[in-house]
Amino acid sequence: MASKKLVNSVAGCADDALAGLVACDPNLQLLQGHRVALRSDLDSLKGRVALLSGGGSGHEPAHAGFIGKGMLTGVIAGAVFTSPAVGSILAAIRAVAQAGTAGILLIVKNYTGDRLNFGLAREQARAEGIAVEMVVIGDDSAFTVLKKAGRRGLCGTVLIHKVAGALAEAGVGLEEITRRVSEVAKTMGTLGVSLSSCSVPGSKPTFELAADEVELGLGIHGEAGVRRIKMATAEEIVRLMLDHMTSTSNASHVPVQSGSSVVLMVNNLGGLSFLELGIIADAAVRCLEGRGVKIARALVGTFMSALEMPGVSLTLLLVDEPLLKLIDAETAAAAWPNVARVSVTGRKRSRAAPVEPQEAPDSTAAGGVTSKKMGLVLERVCTTLLGLEDHLNALDRAAGDGDCGATHSRAARAIQGWLKEGPLPASPAQLLSKLSVLLLEKMGGSSGALYGLFLTAAAQPLKAKTDLPAWSAAMDAGLEAMQKYGQAAPGDRTMLDSLWAARKELQAWKNPGADLFQVLTKAVKSAEAAAEATKNMEAGAGRASYISSARLEQPDPGAVAAAAILRAILEVLQSEDA
Amino acid sequence: MASKKLVNSVAGCADDALAGLVACDPNLQLLQGHRVALRSDLDSLKGRVALLSGGGSGHEPAHAGFIGKGMLTGVIAGAVFTSPAVGSILAAIRAVAQAGTAGILLIVKNYTGDRLNFGLAREQARAEGIAVEMVVIGDDSAFTVLKKAGRRGLCGTVLIHKVAGALAEAGVGLEEITRRVSEVAKTMGTLGVSLSSCSVPGSKPTFELAADEVELGLGIHGEAGVRRIKMATAEEIVRLMLDHMTSTSNASHVPVQSGSSVVLMVNNLGGLSFLELGIIADAAVRCLEGRGVKIARALVGTFMSALEMPGVSLTLLLVDEPLLKLIDAETAAAAWPNVARVSVTGRKRSRAAPVEPQEAPDSTAAGGVTSKKMGLVLERVCTTLLGLEDHLNALDRAAGDGDCGATHSRAARAIQGWLKEGPLPASPAQLLSKLSVLLLEKMGGSSGALYGLFLTAAAQPLKAKTDLPAWSAAMDAGLEAMQKYGQAAPGDRTMLDSLWAARKELQAWKNPGADLFQVLTKAVKSAEAAAEATKNMEAGAGRASYISSARLEQPDPGAVAAAAILRAILEVLQSEDA
Repeated sequence: MASKKLVNSVAGCADDALAGLVACDPNLQLLQGHRVALRSDLDSLKGRVALLSGGGSGHEPAHAGFIGKGMLTGVIAGAVFTSPAVGSILAAIRAVAQAGTAGILLIVKNYTGDRLNFGLAREQARAEGIAVEMVVIGDDSAFTVLKKAGRRGLCGTVLIHKVAGALAEAGVGLEEITRRVSEVAKTMGTLGVSLSSCSVPGSKPTFELAADEVELGLGIHGEAGVRRIKMATAEEIVRLMLDHMTSTSNASHVPVQSGSSVVLMVNNLGGLSFLELGIIADAAVRCLEGRGVKIARALVGTFMSALEMPGVSLTLLLVDEPLLKLIDAETAAAAWPNVARVSVTGRKRSRAAPVEPQEAPDSTAAGGVTSKKMGLVLERVCTTLLGLEDHLNALDRAAGDGDCGATHSRAARAIQGWLKEGPLPASPAQLLSKLSVLLLEKMGGSSGALYGLFLTAAAQPLKAKTDLPAWSAAMDAGLEAMQKYGQAAPGDRTMLDSLWAARKELQAWKNPGADLFQVLTKAVKSAEAAAEATKNMEAGAGRASYISSARLEQPDPGAVAAAAILRAILEVLQSEDA
Repeated sequence: MASKKLVNSVAGCADDALAGLVACDPNLQLLQGHRVALRSDLDSLKGRVALLSGGGSGHEPAHAGFIGKGMLTGVIAGAVFTSPAVGSILAAIRAVAQAGTAGILLIVKNYTGDRLNFGLAREQARAEGIAVEMVVIGDDSAFTVLKKAGRRGLCGTVLIHKVAGALAEAGVGLEEITRRVSEVAKTMGTLGVSLSSCSVPGSKPTFELAADEVELGLGIHGEAGVRRIKMATAEEIVRLMLDHMTSTSNASHVPVQSGSSVVLMVNNLGGLSFLELGIIADAAVRCLEGRGVKIARALVGTFMSALEMPGVSLTLLLVDEPLLKLIDAETAAAAWPNVARVSVTGRKRSRAAPVEPQEAPDSTAAGGVTSKKMGLVLERVCTTLLGLEDHLNALDRAAGDGDCGATHSRAARAIQGWLKEGPLPASPAQLLSKLSVLLLEKMGGSSGALYGLFLTAAAQPLKAKTDLPAWSAAMDAGLEAMQKYGQAAPGDRTMLDSLWAARKELQAWKNPGADLFQVLTKAVKSAEAAAEATKNMEAGAGRASYISSARLEQPDPGAVAAAAILRAILEVLQSEDA
């Protein structure tokens, strides 16, 4: 069966794709009656050399994506993987000539069909008196023994578009541009690798690969490559590719060696993830630099694709300073990337980690509840949570993934371990901050982050004072942060429900002469009641929100745990006080 | 089984991909000890607002591709599809703050993990006295009824990076930037569609789709969408998407209507071919303009991917002139495309076809061989080729695909049809030019193009004169073109072999007093001998070059046909002369 494709019709693919590219780029226009795209400012090119390229469709963004000031003047597109019609090539040549350009260079990838069709259009145009030159680009480094047909034209052709475009924009003449790009074309090489094939719209994939195989040395028309290799790491595959491309025993090698300066292109053949593309780029840079090659510029992206082929090609172009200036020259072509005009090799690629802030001297260290009391509170909280593990897991099984007890126990054991490590921070603010970091790391998941948020925010009001109003404000700040970033509100059947109920009671601590235990006892009771009341609530946030409310007949385990923590705190404080 | 991926290790994917992006972009640096990338010119940002974003990896080029002057200051990356670590977010905030920036805005996509982790880092940073604001972006238009969790952050987030970046670069303050981007974020919507799922490295694809199904309303983590639709044309799917996104009955719709001005993003979710992306872009532009929506800018490419998902998302952002200025502002970010700063809607998208050149008055029309004689020659060539069809096919079966006779017969019938249409052109040059166009169109394939090339080039020397030296020169020019573009040489076992042998003899026509028939007879005999000699040649070009020479025991059919054509010409001329 033919592969699935987002197209209108198999026959119209190439027309529609080109129309889309032109529609979205106001710098382009279609030539009526032909599958040709041209710069819309064609008439401003009087006296300059024009550059036409093209070939089969299916290589987007090549070639139309490289039309624009500083690159191509226009392109002629064929059907998918099919050479364009001679009549359309001739029409493009005539249109460009009639706009008053001073000679035309055809940049053609080395395939029989393209060579013949562009060649024929060129001969016809010359018969009409138009000055047309043609360069045939073959940058393929796959074949170690040269074929009579020569090297295939691959992604390196885009670099030729760039170099020729910069020269034309600078006003260089047709003969000189032809000579220069012919020279440049000799000093580059491209090699592709793919995990699988692609399929022309309306057709099946063009070849099959086993799950542990990779195809090496592919063209850009879905044809199989020169050999199959076993799946390996990205680094091993890149090393193999670079070995193959630069080996002097390969007749089509690119003469790159230690001390060479290159432009590196890492080209997505179409369907490879950009994650993998980055990994390949990393391996290529390290491998080349490891061999003493200086990477002047690195271009990473999709330049010359083979439909949705999940593969990558590497192109190396030897460069000197004058050539680099042409690569760096401005262009309006939509698909040319924003490349920094700075050498890749030799730059510092990392920056020292920031300075960790000094812990501020804490004015509250000596006041308020003592460090020992805080340690006792934490111990009781831990044993409480550990004792509730099975109960919380059971509650969670009804509405979530049944790990709420395990998560809280993990937090409890982390706190117990920490308590054994040494004396607690002297101030409540520091204690809460440290606890925050601990829970975030050791408790994990959303619960860890939510408790972390609560504690971080709650610590702030306790920096200056640790009296009852400050503790009430800490509760406010903690819940505000939890609600803000967690996007749960009271009534959503989460731990926020019990904490919210407690907070309401703890507001009383802000009143002069408020009683610690009286208020806290009311708060704990209120929290417990709120936890219990969650059994009647529809879940509005968290994992339980995906469960139909009819199936939720138990209280929310997070709310139960939060209430239990508050009770543990109350009990320790009361017994210490007694 | 896990999907095939070009990686070094599953665990190292996110680190390696970020390292590759940084290695290839000298404008970026990694923050030591963290999965954080920052502008390398961080220290030049003193007094300006810094912008940090990030999230799970697997969305490349987001987010690190959007770091650079005019966009983000830095990003924090998590593991694949996993929220980044709080410690790394905090480290990025500290690094940026310590560089002397004037406040930091965190741009966060609306996912629980990101909200919590960025939120927590923000609270910790604020506790350290750093001014940090946070905006949570939700541009998803998939859910018609609003979820408590809010809209997911999708590709539109990149537009927020752009807008915030332009404001920060312009020196706008933290509060004002936060306010502005929060407003902008409310006026955009994104919807995705995919032909298949993607797979996290080390894992299987995240969902399965039937061959005739398309997933609508996906997120960017491989999660399934809101519904499955039947496969349809690109145009139908785009219309459905735009209907869904802009319907006022959709609680998360983007308020686009007739008269609205928008920025359109056509985002490759990863593995869709750029051919299809162009087709979708074309459909989107036509559909929106058909509804009276003005497309101010259209961005087509890969911005926010979901690994290799073969799908596309559309984003619409309502814009006015001031907002458009921010979208248009300069940026050095590598993945921001080269967008023309011109409205997409309202531009002329096509250009009139070029003027066909007038046929030059031909000075040779009356001289040389007569039009009648040329007609007789062509008739004999046609009957000769038709008579040879079976023989040529048989010869071709041994070395090619057995259609050489059929191809030549197709040409012969085309010429016969043309002869019936009316009088032949009066001059030989015009005759050969017309024949060239005819063969190219009707004979087809490489043979049609090669004969077309031969005839086009051969016609040129006959424009001025049609004496024997001119005909010899015509043969030279024709063969030169055929050889140049076809890349075959004499001895390669092609039709060139017989023509080449004839050409050598026809040089004698250039001598004063040369005899037409004596020379032509020698040329025909030489051509026939050369055709016969191809049986001993190894194929050096064309399809037969893939066959081992041991299996080629017959002469080349193309060479036989060419020799037969020459003999037919000789016979007619001799009988006419007698």
